[in-house]
Amino acid sequence: MIKDRDGRNRVIIEGLKPEVDAGRFPIKRTVGEKVFVEADIFTDSHDALSCVLLYRNDDESQWRESPMEFLVNDRWRGEFTVTELGQYRYTIQAWVDHFKSWRQVLLKKFDAGHDVSTDILAGADLIEEAGKQTPGSDAKKLKEVAISLRSAKELSDKLRIAHDEGLAALMAKYSGREYATTYNKELFVVVDRPKASFSAWYEIFPRSCSTEPGHHSTFKDCEGRLPYIAAMGFDVLYFPPIHPIGQTHRKGKNNTPTAGPNDPGSPWAIGSAEGGHKDIHAQLGTLEDFRGLITKAANYGIEIAIDLAFQCTPDHPYVKEHPDWFHWRPDRSVQYAENPPKKYEDIYPLNFETEKWRELWEELKGIVLFWIDQGVRIFRVDNPHTKPFHFWEWLIKEVKKDYPEVIFLAEAFTRPKVMYQLAKLGFTQSYTYFAWRNTKWELTQYLTELSQTEVREYLRPSLWPNTPDILTEYLQMGGRPAFMARLVLAATLGASYGIYGPAFELCENRPKEFGSEEYLDSEKYEIKNWDISRPDSLKDFIARVNRIRRENPSLHSDWSLRFHPIDNEQIICYSKQTEDCSNVIVVVVNLDPHHTQAGWVELSLSDLGINHRMPYQVHDLLSDARYLWHGHRNYVELNPGIVPAQIFRVRHRVRTERDFDYFM
Amino acid sequence: MIKDRDGRNRVIIEGLKPEVDAGRFPIKRTVGEKVFVEADIFTDSHDALSCVLLYRNDDESQWRESPMEFLVNDRWRGEFTVTELGQYRYTIQAWVDHFKSWRQVLLKKFDAGHDVSTDILAGADLIEEAGKQTPGSDAKKLKEVAISLRSAKELSDKLRIAHDEGLAALMAKYSGREYATTYNKELFVVVDRPKASFSAWYEIFPRSCSTEPGHHSTFKDCEGRLPYIAAMGFDVLYFPPIHPIGQTHRKGKNNTPTAGPNDPGSPWAIGSAEGGHKDIHAQLGTLEDFRGLITKAANYGIEIAIDLAFQCTPDHPYVKEHPDWFHWRPDRSVQYAENPPKKYEDIYPLNFETEKWRELWEELKGIVLFWIDQGVRIFRVDNPHTKPFHFWEWLIKEVKKDYPEVIFLAEAFTRPKVMYQLAKLGFTQSYTYFAWRNTKWELTQYLTELSQTEVREYLRPSLWPNTPDILTEYLQMGGRPAFMARLVLAATLGASYGIYGPAFELCENRPKEFGSEEYLDSEKYEIKNWDISRPDSLKDFIARVNRIRRENPSLHSDWSLRFHPIDNEQIICYSKQTEDCSNVIVVVVNLDPHHTQAGWVELSLSDLGINHRMPYQVHDLLSDARYLWHGHRNYVELNPGIVPAQIFRVRHRVRTERDFDYFM
Repeated sequence: MIKDRDGRNRVIIEGLKPEVDAGRFPIKRTVGEKVFVEADIFTDSHDALSCVLLYRNDDESQWRESPMEFLVNDRWRGEFTVTELGQYRYTIQAWVDHFKSWRQVLLKKFDAGHDVSTDILAGADLIEEAGKQTPGSDAKKLKEVAISLRSAKELSDKLRIAHDEGLAALMAKYSGREYATTYNKELFVVVDRPKASFSAWYEIFPRSCSTEPGHHSTFKDCEGRLPYIAAMGFDVLYFPPIHPIGQTHRKGKNNTPTAGPNDPGSPWAIGSAEGGHKDIHAQLGTLEDFRGLITKAANYGIEIAIDLAFQCTPDHPYVKEHPDWFHWRPDRSVQYAENPPKKYEDIYPLNFETEKWRELWEELKGIVLFWIDQGVRIFRVDNPHTKPFHFWEWLIKEVKKDYPEVIFLAEAFTRPKVMYQLAKLGFTQSYTYFAWRNTKWELTQYLTELSQTEVREYLRPSLWPNTPDILTEYLQMGGRPAFMARLVLAATLGASYGIYGPAFELCENRPKEFGSEEYLDSEKYEIKNWDISRPDSLKDFIARVNRIRRENPSLHSDWSLRFHPIDNEQIICYSKQTEDCSNVIVVVVNLDPHHTQAGWVELSLSDLGINHRMPYQVHDLLSDARYLWHGHRNYVELNPGIVPAQIFRVRHRVRTERDFDYFM
Repeated sequence: MIKDRDGRNRVIIEGLKPEVDAGRFPIKRTVGEKVFVEADIFTDSHDALSCVLLYRNDDESQWRESPMEFLVNDRWRGEFTVTELGQYRYTIQAWVDHFKSWRQVLLKKFDAGHDVSTDILAGADLIEEAGKQTPGSDAKKLKEVAISLRSAKELSDKLRIAHDEGLAALMAKYSGREYATTYNKELFVVVDRPKASFSAWYEIFPRSCSTEPGHHSTFKDCEGRLPYIAAMGFDVLYFPPIHPIGQTHRKGKNNTPTAGPNDPGSPWAIGSAEGGHKDIHAQLGTLEDFRGLITKAANYGIEIAIDLAFQCTPDHPYVKEHPDWFHWRPDRSVQYAENPPKKYEDIYPLNFETEKWRELWEELKGIVLFWIDQGVRIFRVDNPHTKPFHFWEWLIKEVKKDYPEVIFLAEAFTRPKVMYQLAKLGFTQSYTYFAWRNTKWELTQYLTELSQTEVREYLRPSLWPNTPDILTEYLQMGGRPAFMARLVLAATLGASYGIYGPAFELCENRPKEFGSEEYLDSEKYEIKNWDISRPDSLKDFIARVNRIRRENPSLHSDWSLRFHPIDNEQIICYSKQTEDCSNVIVVVVNLDPHHTQAGWVELSLSDLGINHRMPYQVHDLLSDARYLWHGHRNYVELNPGIVPAQIFRVRHRVRTERDFDYFM
């Protein structure tokens, strides 16, 4: 970097955005996205400034530079595009630009009728001085300009020379950075592949894909399920843990403390005599079968995501091989997980405070690398908030050094600060509280926080209406319309979303008991045989929604999300749009699963790039109905018994100057 | 500091407040004030935390420690009091507290009826382990507790031992900080004397204090003016520059380009054959006279503040002695100040980009130290935004190292970011835009920004209704009621404020011309003879307001400022209160200088500590009238022809629990 903090260094750079926790953490982008950078930049007195944005890929040794433009109130803005996976860095450099000041003052004095002859000479000196520090042929050019500025006979000639843009470009390149200020931090961008911010996840238990009732299915059976999943339009297929399941304290149906002889146990109870985190549960098949499934899935445009659940059953080989990694009690037993009065005797948490923590960290990293070797590039991480933050930061950084395409999804339904910390330290995507945000006010507040505040710089939300652990009251009570509404909300509010199926598309909504969010006869503890061909399945509806997502680029990001008023508390209305307004989607959802609701939507037309003097067409991509709307207030009516939502593609002439000429 | 960033370090500390620009700049406090520190502090899993605030005066080598308490949502809070002038630093330390966790879990398990015998043993191990790291007799104590915990016969005895508060205190002292997290920054507090935040300034031209018309007065004459100023209740008397005034291009009356033979010139045109910044303008007296005045003023409780205007006339000795400190043009003239089309040929700005900048900086520091030697401790700095920021930061730090009691007031009526930067880098007080904030909305917005946002951590506002450069339109148009209203606003909205007199108390409001904020026949360019005994002078009113300020501690700070609604846009209502609500002041001001205005004030009683079920007295300290008010809505009526404001002292019973018992 150029030297700084000389006494003659006069420029202040502060209030830089984006910057997460004073640069402690990187911002996140995907390949091809722009990074807009703003800062307050100013100097003493009235001298002119020049400001540039410096940026580079970590593989490059030289900064690239892009000019910043002045906005207002000492605020400047610049931008660059990230084109490669991995890490970028950026900072700002600014300096008092004497040449620019000189040109401005010269013009003002000339306009005021002052004598500028001495000013012309001062400018020639400036240019000559710059020439001395300039390499190659440009040095000669600058020297010649200085001479002709001094020797030109007419003042008008001198002024023309002074304001020549070629001269300005040369001077911008070579002069004045001696006492430049470089912002006191380099800031980082982690650049992921597009799927990091735009993805549709489908979670299934691979053991429940058999067509024979009660039968433990295999990876081969899962292959048979791929066309079904692909037809619905999902691009990530996520499996709960696929490792050997422990016997000791195995849980029975509905999480009963003792398992019957045929109870398969919870896949999250990892480890048995057969092996641990690098092994495959034998009933699912072999490692080779798994690799085969990955390949088959890829042919359908589907990536397999697996679960990283760093915990062990008492039967896990680690317990004997690495007793140091567990917490031993005075009675020589290993401390099992507990949250009094609850006991989880089938789970031994790893002791991250062990003396051997380095060894433990390396082994856990080894697990990730092992599955990367098998072809996995997406990991859903179970309960990351129960392992140290520094561990995750290290692990994710280590893995992404060699595999920048890897995606980690944090399953942390915990306190807000903890969730945000995990996102900051490196998780690519994060589960959110979406499942429990049901009213218009809740959804508006929460999605605004996620998509319109600094949070979006580091947290990429993944919206899940259900998971094997979460059957919300809204779904329990609202039946099929509730599932449809929540699907549309998740899929359009969230560029990334997921469902746990086939429970979701079959609208499974029986809770373990009243007041519980657990499923009755939860798949976590038993093998299910889902009738995916049921005529009331939402599979076609889901397929349609996912196709709408793919075909409309405005739904590939959350940053343009904007809520619009509607005079009915049961209907929510929001829009997303591309930067150039060429793709504008307006969604209306009836949040009341029981009654038809209607209301008047108020769109902020100018924000959506719609000419308020022209009618425009809204095309409901779900029903294929088309409506001609006028002005900002329009009527909608949604019958949850049919479809509780409309996803409108807005078709309109992009507003041009000519429109105004025409209509004014 | 204790070692950090071990793999077993599990606590995150972030979102610390107060912290200005990630700790780049200190916060400001005065001696005796508290610093409240908050942060988000959390760890993985469910373990208990202990958090302490570390702080110390820079003269101390050891941290002091005060415990932090948990608020909500992972937010913790602690406090400390600054008792010495100079600089303090603070940070936070937090750790996973296994003993605290153990006690909590033990109780929960016992309550749930679980067997806790192994837990008791685990606790004994913890205590024994802590004992090993404990010095002196406490080691023995801990060892004994461990033994008795193991050997006690009854479970009830064991539980009693486990929950003994003496044990908890010992364990808090000695256990568990091995893997503590210390916040990654030390943050600073600059501690000033109380006058830094509570002061009433009075600005006069010392040459205009004579009783003889047209006569240039001396410091001796100024001594005669001291009783008058003291009677009005001011505690800082600020003089424009008292140095020799240049002859070359001296300005005449009303800033005309040429001075007549008797025109005294502007005091800001510093430097003549007689001397420069370390000299006294001969017509004012000698250095000894000046020191004498300082002493005399001190007897009246008044401190003399002088002006630091770092600029020179063409006659200043520096121009010959240090040509390097100025900017020379190709025609061998020195660059004068200009802002085309305006020229200031009587002013040569210093060239801070000179090669000799270190020498220049030292000389300017020498000027400050010279006047400190004469007894000056308060400096009003002229146009600081036209000198480099780093220069001021260095200068103020250098000076305050030896003289932490020195106060610098920044005269920077410039762009907001620049003003804030000057405050951040060290100025003790700052002029504000108050002069131009006249409507209720403007005043509410601006004073809320100054007193209720992060700005208050580093910027101490000084509110001036007028200065020799600023005669606002509001004062020009509003006459005497406008002067009274603006005085009350400045003196009660601002713990620090000032006026330029006697122009102010004599309600001088004739502008140079329509649309100008310059005074007609400005004192900047001529000697004035003010008739301070005029019967319509506001001096008694000012005296009353200043006495109210002194007697009511709630007016000594701006932090408690709160605006209250009133159903009349011409009346503004606000309150200030002490932390314990023992002193509550409610101010209402009629902003309309022409008409009587009335309205219903709505006070938020609970915030003011007023029992809403009891009547309370409001005592107008200006008129001495007393009113009995009930509930939150009460009527006020203000006739600007009499007094356009009321300053109520609220007298009420402090609300207690018993009140509720009584009235419920």
